[in-house]
Amino acid sequence: MAHINLPADLPGIRGPMAFSPETAKPLNELAEILLRDDNNTLSRGERELIGTYVSSLNDCFFCQNIHGALAGHYLQCDIPTIDAIKVDYETTALSPKLKALLSIAGSVQKGGRQVTPEQIQRAKDLGATDKEIHDTVLIAAAFCMYNRYVDGLATWAPQDRQYYVERAPRRAEEGYIDFDLYK
Amino acid sequence: MAHINLPADLPGIRGPMAFSPETAKPLNELAEILLRDDNNTLSRGERELIGTYVSSLNDCFFCQNIHGALAGHYLQCDIPTIDAIKVDYETTALSPKLKALLSIAGSVQKGGRQVTPEQIQRAKDLGATDKEIHDTVLIAAAFCMYNRYVDGLATWAPQDRQYYVERAPRRAEEGYIDFDLYK
Repeated sequence: MAHINLPADLPGIRGPMAFSPETAKPLNELAEILLRDDNNTLSRGERELIGTYVSSLNDCFFCQNIHGALAGHYLQCDIPTIDAIKVDYETTALSPKLKALLSIAGSVQKGGRQVTPEQIQRAKDLGATDKEIHDTVLIAAAFCMYNRYVDGLATWAPQDRQYYVERAPRRAEEGYIDFDLYK
Repeated sequence: MAHINLPADLPGIRGPMAFSPETAKPLNELAEILLRDDNNTLSRGERELIGTYVSSLNDCFFCQNIHGALAGHYLQCDIPTIDAIKVDYETTALSPKLKALLSIAGSVQKGGRQVTPEQIQRAKDLGATDKEIHDTVLIAAAFCMYNRYVDGLATWAPQDRQYYVERAPRRAEEGYIDFDLYK
């Protein structure tokens, strides 16, 4: 049971968002710009993957599953492939640049001061732009917020992982702004 | 030196916000609603104090000083008093309810799952409403983002703590939306 009185039928972040629509608005606008804006050289799938990885480090079941399903949808790969990235991305077939960015995201999850100049240099040497590094840091930081919001209020989450896979195409189509919390 | 090419004259979060105004917008709107909205039974000073405490746990010099100065401005107390709260709020003259909320905020800083039903019950027994608990969790979660954004990009911060004290009245007057990044 959630720590406060949330709508019982809404899983994950949707309960707190229905409870507090005035804060949901900037939270969703931030997600829309960070994860979906077309003016970005990181694909939507790559950005969802960064969020998924940070959510797995934060042990947030809801976030790592819905954003993992979205990453799989965009990148056209299955959930075991996403899971393998979460466990050890360095040994996967991801691009060297994305691996360097995931390394930065992993440090941000521990704390901002954990990011080293060497990690930044590795990313730049592999072609990462300042905007890509900026967005990686802010996506990782933002998921440290979303994850804590979801779990800090003890929201519930469907345990069947297929639930998230089936919702991903609709979430990808609707985005984070104009969607119905109850659908 | 910052990890990416930020305006050299802007300290703390203002550098990344000038670099990325499209993400600065929802970040500032979230801060405005969480920390300043009048439809709230927690005072502005109490909310700034929650953000200050979380920023100190995250060891973010810029955030804990500017928000600590704002808390001091609103609560009409000096910086040593704010520092004492950061070090051990339970032994200070804060209200029992605010102490219970700071305890929740401290757990959120570690991770959402660290918040216990006992901490929530203590807050409720001391009169905390669901909205106050919600806002405490989201303020703490949001500062886990802001702190990581500021330090994950290695922004610089004035080391003279009086700098922040002197800026606080102006920041309190202008709020987080309509302010000039360069003033």
